[in-house]
Amino acid sequence: MPRRNLKLTIAYDGTDFVGWQVQRTGRTVQGVIQDALGSMHRSPVTVYAAGRTDSGVHADGQIINFRTTIDSIPSPEYHIALNSYLPSDVRAIMSAEVPDSFHARYSATRRVYRYYYALSDVLHPRRRIFAVRLRHRPCLQRLNRLSAPLIGSHDFTTFTLPRETSRSRVREVYSAGFFPLHGQLVFEISGSGFLWRMVRSIVGTLLELDKRQAEPNEMVRRLAACNRTETSACAPAAGLVLHYVEYPDEQLHEQRI
Amino acid sequence: MPRRNLKLTIAYDGTDFVGWQVQRTGRTVQGVIQDALGSMHRSPVTVYAAGRTDSGVHADGQIINFRTTIDSIPSPEYHIALNSYLPSDVRAIMSAEVPDSFHARYSATRRVYRYYYALSDVLHPRRRIFAVRLRHRPCLQRLNRLSAPLIGSHDFTTFTLPRETSRSRVREVYSAGFFPLHGQLVFEISGSGFLWRMVRSIVGTLLELDKRQAEPNEMVRRLAACNRTETSACAPAAGLVLHYVEYPDEQLHEQRI
Repeated sequence: MPRRNLKLTIAYDGTDFVGWQVQRTGRTVQGVIQDALGSMHRSPVTVYAAGRTDSGVHADGQIINFRTTIDSIPSPEYHIALNSYLPSDVRAIMSAEVPDSFHARYSATRRVYRYYYALSDVLHPRRRIFAVRLRHRPCLQRLNRLSAPLIGSHDFTTFTLPRETSRSRVREVYSAGFFPLHGQLVFEISGSGFLWRMVRSIVGTLLELDKRQAEPNEMVRRLAACNRTETSACAPAAGLVLHYVEYPDEQLHEQRI
Repeated sequence: MPRRNLKLTIAYDGTDFVGWQVQRTGRTVQGVIQDALGSMHRSPVTVYAAGRTDSGVHADGQIINFRTTIDSIPSPEYHIALNSYLPSDVRAIMSAEVPDSFHARYSATRRVYRYYYALSDVLHPRRRIFAVRLRHRPCLQRLNRLSAPLIGSHDFTTFTLPRETSRSRVREVYSAGFFPLHGQLVFEISGSGFLWRMVRSIVGTLLELDKRQAEPNEMVRRLAACNRTETSACAPAAGLVLHYVEYPDEQLHEQRI
């Protein structure tokens, strides 16, 4: 039986999930998607994701892949069929057939996360789900000076949890910076991969340092310390969104049959 | 003791409320605001609203007024103090002192409601709270031809529930029309006031008539029938937002002390 390898772009509101990855208890995004695919296939389907987002973290562009044995649904319409099995806080946005070698996690070359802070004094109820209120008036220039040294290959032990299971704490950050967008302050960071709590630890620390009007080289010192106690604050999950994931060209060659 | 009359602009996500008005059971927006003001005043405070929105209906610009005996909070900052007592799905956006004669409900001259339909095939999780998915490809021109006859003074018995308690079912509609906005189809209607379920009955019927490619005079016939059975469909609460409320100039003369 032909088994297509499908790549789907997924968006979700992470509020009511204990995270991406299936756990012994609690509602997970992976669990909800696997249940939906299980109903469609009448047999279990395993799903791989580019980023295993934490409890309360959202996604606009999570990428997943899985094998399907259903022949009757064209690849570009597969996400529509899946949506009729999914709850409204998880939506499949696009779908395409990809080469058998494609793996959402291991093939990914660049992951982009965004952290949203509301700049207004009042956080509109419509925005509260995807943005966190800033408790001080930020200085965009200082924030960008503080975050510039993050770019490059570093040991990020300071900005992860001791529980992090990766052998190496070295990750490569390709870009990091703040910009204003529709009344919000957005921190965007991209890299080869991220350690557990890394983005939230970095952004929480940057905002805390901005508030204290710290010197631009303060992040350099903190990175070099390789010590978790140098994380000033871990920003709340609600502001973090897995924005986008990139793959090498040969993997992006999607077979739209 | 001086008792200022305060006018506040309120936004809320109606999802987790059984409506504006305090009821015997269930979480209401009025109840939550009165509880917050009660905590601030250490005595009960009664709040009046421009529109008593239904269960699940949202507000971007609900207007309320109440009397306060608290002297220490300047009127333009009153909403900030109140927000610290409110849950995150209700926010006070602005506050101002108004003349004693101002009444949020009885002084209002024009109420504007918006109904949001998502135009994309997929309703993004971020939008699902404030928009409803369209089940057919709408024709903007037909929709606007169908809705034009709503403008003016009409008996809206067709578009309300028999339980509506107002003696008269006559209301004046000042404007009604559809327009596209950020990938959404918005129906905006303004009028002197609205009967129970009136906006949702009108928009639900308009969309159903558009789907059936009805003649432009079909709404004229339905209005004239003065019969609830001529409502084709009542649109879901989630798409409806109390957008804005207007008051006469003398009432708008806010005393920003």
